[in-house]
Amino acid sequence: MVDLSSALKASAENVEEKLKSILSTDDAPERRLIEAMRHAVLGGGKRLRPFLTLQCAGLFGVADQSALRTACAIELVHCYSLVHDDLPAMDDDDLRRGRPTVHKAFDEATAILAGDALLTLAFGVLANPATHANPGVRADLVAQLAKAAGGHGMVGGQMIDLQAGQEDLTIGAITRLQRLKTGALIDFACHAGAILGRAPEPAREALRGYAHDLGLAFQIADDLLDVEGSEDETGKAVGKDKSANKATFVEILGPERARAQATLLATQAADHLAMFDKKADLLRDVARFVVERRH
Amino acid sequence: MVDLSSALKASAENVEEKLKSILSTDDAPERRLIEAMRHAVLGGGKRLRPFLTLQCAGLFGVADQSALRTACAIELVHCYSLVHDDLPAMDDDDLRRGRPTVHKAFDEATAILAGDALLTLAFGVLANPATHANPGVRADLVAQLAKAAGGHGMVGGQMIDLQAGQEDLTIGAITRLQRLKTGALIDFACHAGAILGRAPEPAREALRGYAHDLGLAFQIADDLLDVEGSEDETGKAVGKDKSANKATFVEILGPERARAQATLLATQAADHLAMFDKKADLLRDVARFVVERRH
Repeated sequence: MVDLSSALKASAENVEEKLKSILSTDDAPERRLIEAMRHAVLGGGKRLRPFLTLQCAGLFGVADQSALRTACAIELVHCYSLVHDDLPAMDDDDLRRGRPTVHKAFDEATAILAGDALLTLAFGVLANPATHANPGVRADLVAQLAKAAGGHGMVGGQMIDLQAGQEDLTIGAITRLQRLKTGALIDFACHAGAILGRAPEPAREALRGYAHDLGLAFQIADDLLDVEGSEDETGKAVGKDKSANKATFVEILGPERARAQATLLATQAADHLAMFDKKADLLRDVARFVVERRH
Repeated sequence: MVDLSSALKASAENVEEKLKSILSTDDAPERRLIEAMRHAVLGGGKRLRPFLTLQCAGLFGVADQSALRTACAIELVHCYSLVHDDLPAMDDDDLRRGRPTVHKAFDEATAILAGDALLTLAFGVLANPATHANPGVRADLVAQLAKAAGGHGMVGGQMIDLQAGQEDLTIGAITRLQRLKTGALIDFACHAGAILGRAPEPAREALRGYAHDLGLAFQIADDLLDVEGSEDETGKAVGKDKSANKATFVEILGPERARAQATLLATQAADHLAMFDKKADLLRDVARFVVERRH
């Protein structure tokens, strides 16, 4: 049996290598932009979303290269969203993964452009024939990513989150906010494996259920880390949600009930995977991992 | 013979209608974002890039719906780039098309997110089966747009432009800058028509030549307007290039030689279209129009 932490490490290394080659530098006058993109993407992160894509693709025997390129495209989108979220006009963070954020290491204009270019690149990677021989699969990946990451997906969630401090959100409204802000891209990370593998509907349905519960568990755990974690452990500023008066699950439920809810969701997530038998063991382990992690 | 200004007007109306339906509002909590996107996109602009796509698609008998959706996707990218360029950290403009820029009408965070969502939406529109029945065509549109708009395309050009004030650029370097910053998307606007129409290589080559010369002519004319135009005519602040110490064609060549160069390029652009005979008359007219326009 493969151990999750070794599997995560091996996967993160593969993703890092591929991201490096996708973000290769040259001597063009726009190299400052490429350097900022590399700063945003390389050398860090758990690479959780790519891991989900690789594991889900593995359930359907998808070719390594297809899965890896798709996983990288999703990580590019995740990284662009962090670069823009960290900007002074947004969350105004100086630290990310223990390093200066892009607008600190470079400047604000470069950070805006680097985010834009990363998002654009993600779509370019998916649409490239190297990602999958079947253009229908490529076009579907692009369409689904656009939906997950767009105005009624991740960016929409970020918009609601920015306004959330101004009003008291119900648990239903927070759930929707988080479904969009972090859930949609996690859903797509799983769904992409099924698209690549042209999986039958029952398998897609199972992965949708898994991704849905995993995404919420992940977000609650993240809120708990913001309350309970230390800056050293998380590599970013903590206690920000409270000081920004942001509505979170922890704020409404209290830490104990929030932790119980996260654990329940993680168990539920794993339960969706019955049909995949042992092949989904690492995905089950991930569900436990996201609620137990300390960073 | 159809007159260019009526053709531009009719085309802009069709594009406006379609953009409205693409950017439809609802009562979702993220509606502020959609409103900001609509502010950025609707109610203005010459819609020059969509016109190019529609005209080029027309050379190959592309279905109206395919051409119109693709034209709208390109306009979404153009509008997103304006929203981000106008931000305080970038060009810091308060006025666009005679109206407050998005960060003025809303706020900075909303402008950043609206730009992100518009870019994402553009790819979603292209990848949607409604745009073309052939998924290979859709995937190709996405791949080529990503190239034109990305780090070695439009965004790369914007990066170089931001640094340009700091150094004296040669005419070669400015040409490269403009090829990326405005040329790449104009190229794609023309090329998209050929992709949709599965045009043979000689036709693509002709359109590449046309788009190349048109893009440069357009940019020189734009620089001239910044020097010679009035705020009333252009609907945006003028004289900004000089005050920002930006390297432009006009700065290096002087207004007279710059105008002569733009006129020459416009003639050259039209000359590339010989093989299309009368079908390309409006595209020839556009080349003249971009250098003669007062706004």
